[in-house]
Amino acid sequence: MTRIRDLVITPVAFRDPPLLNSTGLHEPLALRCVLQLHVDGGIVGLGECPGDRGQLDRLAAVREHVIGHSVHAINRIERAVERTLAGVADPIARRATFSAIEVACLDAQGHLAGVPVAELLGGAVRPAVPYAAYLFYKWAAHPGADEDEWGPATTPEGLVEQARRMIDRYGFRSVKLKGGVFEPDEEIAAIMALRAALPGVPLRLDPNGAWTAETARRVAKELDGTLEYLEDPVLGMDDMAAVAATAPMPLASNMCTTSLETIAPVVERGAVQVVLSDHHYWGGLRRTQHLATVCDTFGLGLSMHSNSHLGISLAAMTHVAATIPTLTYACDTHYPWNAADDVVLPGALRFAEGAVPVPDGPGLGVRLDHDALARLHEAYVRSGRQVRDDAGYLRRFQPGFDPSLPRW
Amino acid sequence: MTRIRDLVITPVAFRDPPLLNSTGLHEPLALRCVLQLHVDGGIVGLGECPGDRGQLDRLAAVREHVIGHSVHAINRIERAVERTLAGVADPIARRATFSAIEVACLDAQGHLAGVPVAELLGGAVRPAVPYAAYLFYKWAAHPGADEDEWGPATTPEGLVEQARRMIDRYGFRSVKLKGGVFEPDEEIAAIMALRAALPGVPLRLDPNGAWTAETARRVAKELDGTLEYLEDPVLGMDDMAAVAATAPMPLASNMCTTSLETIAPVVERGAVQVVLSDHHYWGGLRRTQHLATVCDTFGLGLSMHSNSHLGISLAAMTHVAATIPTLTYACDTHYPWNAADDVVLPGALRFAEGAVPVPDGPGLGVRLDHDALARLHEAYVRSGRQVRDDAGYLRRFQPGFDPSLPRW
Ligand SMILES: [Mg+2]
Ligand SMILES: [Mg+2]
Repeated sequence: MTRIRDLVITPVAFRDPPLLNSTGLHEPLALRCVLQLHVDGGIVGLGECPGDRGQLDRLAAVREHVIGHSVHAINRIERAVERTLAGVADPIARRATFSAIEVACLDAQGHLAGVPVAELLGGAVRPAVPYAAYLFYKWAAHPGADEDEWGPATTPEGLVEQARRMIDRYGFRSVKLKGGVFEPDEEIAAIMALRAALPGVPLRLDPNGAWTAETARRVAKELDGTLEYLEDPVLGMDDMAAVAATAPMPLASNMCTTSLETIAPVVERGAVQVVLSDHHYWGGLRRTQHLATVCDTFGLGLSMHSNSHLGISLAAMTHVAATIPTLTYACDTHYPWNAADDVVLPGALRFAEGAVPVPDGPGLGVRLDHDALARLHEAYVRSGRQVRDDAGYLRRFQPGFDPSLPRW
Repeated sequence: MTRIRDLVITPVAFRDPPLLNSTGLHEPLALRCVLQLHVDGGIVGLGECPGDRGQLDRLAAVREHVIGHSVHAINRIERAVERTLAGVADPIARRATFSAIEVACLDAQGHLAGVPVAELLGGAVRPAVPYAAYLFYKWAAHPGADEDEWGPATTPEGLVEQARRMIDRYGFRSVKLKGGVFEPDEEIAAIMALRAALPGVPLRLDPNGAWTAETARRVAKELDGTLEYLEDPVLGMDDMAAVAATAPMPLASNMCTTSLETIAPVVERGAVQVVLSDHHYWGGLRRTQHLATVCDTFGLGLSMHSNSHLGISLAAMTHVAATIPTLTYACDTHYPWNAADDVVLPGALRFAEGAVPVPDGPGLGVRLDHDALARLHEAYVRSGRQVRDDAGYLRRFQPGFDPSLPRW
């Protein structure tokens, strides 16, 4: 038996551009947490997850219940985490904690067996995983800082320019726009401009629940024929079901359904047609595969959500997505916005025609850049930041900003 | 990469007692098929599945599409099998073919990594898997043959005697009766006799669809408080839903739902409360885990079905069942009826207090008895048997027997 000997939890902060969404503005530093799971034989498995205070506290709480287990005892560790966090009401918070540990266990298992994580998960059915260009309305710079390399994007033309640069650089063949920032008619115009500029490229729009059901129904109708799916136009199961009843395109969601507990009502009510998986929230890579079977069984489509993340998560997303035959949409990733500050050594992760080839080294196939980790941890400590607060950050510059939703 | 170099398919025939069910009588020989999957490095993975002609033909058809794959490429092999068998309408037939190969791949993977199959599946959450005593109405002997060690059981007293011997020998703590053989009132009397003889022991009854909905509703009412579940009292989704609507106990099934395709209507109609998994039919060990998540997500219970089988299947059933936290019922097994003719070497599989400890050797943890395999294959060839025909066999002695269901 190969035992887990230590779990090192390192919060990090990395540069994030001034990206706009329905609840505010990305702060200059995004927070993540890097896990190093030390097992017998000197092998270290890597994991990555959100880096807010609550998540760090949950990881600290479960740490002693993880150490000592076999690195293969994923099911027992899942139960231990669930038991330790029984007082945490939110199942997503519990599962995000377990998920990061599961990924680290699988990375270590892959190193032990000399096979990639995808092969531990039944093997890849595609050699590379397509991702979508993730467009954002954004400012040219964080106030008081220099302009970033991406420049401003607050108009349809700015977004088209951003899309072209993303596609030039990464080869993306699908495009997603984070909406919910401007009046719906402006965002319709943006989608129409992207449609005209990028004929044949699948488009998605995600206003993150910024609209009323009435607005969403109107926008959906106006965008008939232009979107492969419309993501979370409204908040809550009731409104999603109401919009889905008339929308000409499928509705996708990472807000209305984020855990298996909410799948049964989603199915019953037809509230969502495309479930956005995310191994961080759905309980790890194996549970993401289970989710794929659940979706297939009930006629739901499957795509993949992302938050701001680094290369460990990109590797994990790529390994699991490569193993799921029914994951036929390009996955979301924020990686291009944050890749400059990665904690993994260059070389293992690359985009070719918008897709990331499954790393072929053992485990996740990525290696930790210890200098970068130290630097980003130092940035975390210096920042004094504990939580993400897009609304508070935007209010500093627009004191009247009210993050309440729906807005239109 | 560790490649699959050969797949050796060996049909076998082994002794089976004269067990009665709703469609006839078990023949003196049961048919199975043993797979030996040869991979690089001289490692051989074992699989086992039904041994009827159709299954052998399907295995022969997919063999060349399996050889050459990485032994880790389970998802690709699944797709290759599905593609090769696209003309086979029955999804269960396709999945049974894949399942045997998947088990052999996992066995080989376990040998390569030096870990038990349960650990490849996330690890055991229980050290041993409880099974139920599987009682049958039976004759004392196959006509013309000597009486077998179990003796006759055609009365409540005979079944109680059989149960006591099974429990004495194996320590079972749950009991299942294969019914659908005699008038419902006789089977009610048998359950009542078992209830009185074995206080506190969970009981199940499986008439295999022998009853009308009206009869099933009456029997269910009369057995209120005596059964942990009633299994397939009627045939078909309509009648199962009608019976479930009034039955005081959960209904279980391995007939109304045998594949993921039938789960959505089962959920929608409330036709089944406990799904009987069977890795042979549901597409392998990993798909059985997926099924567990599907069931958990939709509030369905989970237990496990068996057909007449040998030790390779018992090992596979035990490994996967040990990894599923929500598999809280004792599993079915025919193994005690057939264990004398096993193809695995003694020692790895044993019953302790009705449960089989998860074999702790690498892979499935069982080793092939090549002499036994040769002997049972010889018996298969000599028998000239191609398919199972319980009805035809019973008609030889009861020419008027009509296997049509429902019967009462
Ligand atoms: Mg979203
Ligand atoms: Mg049955």
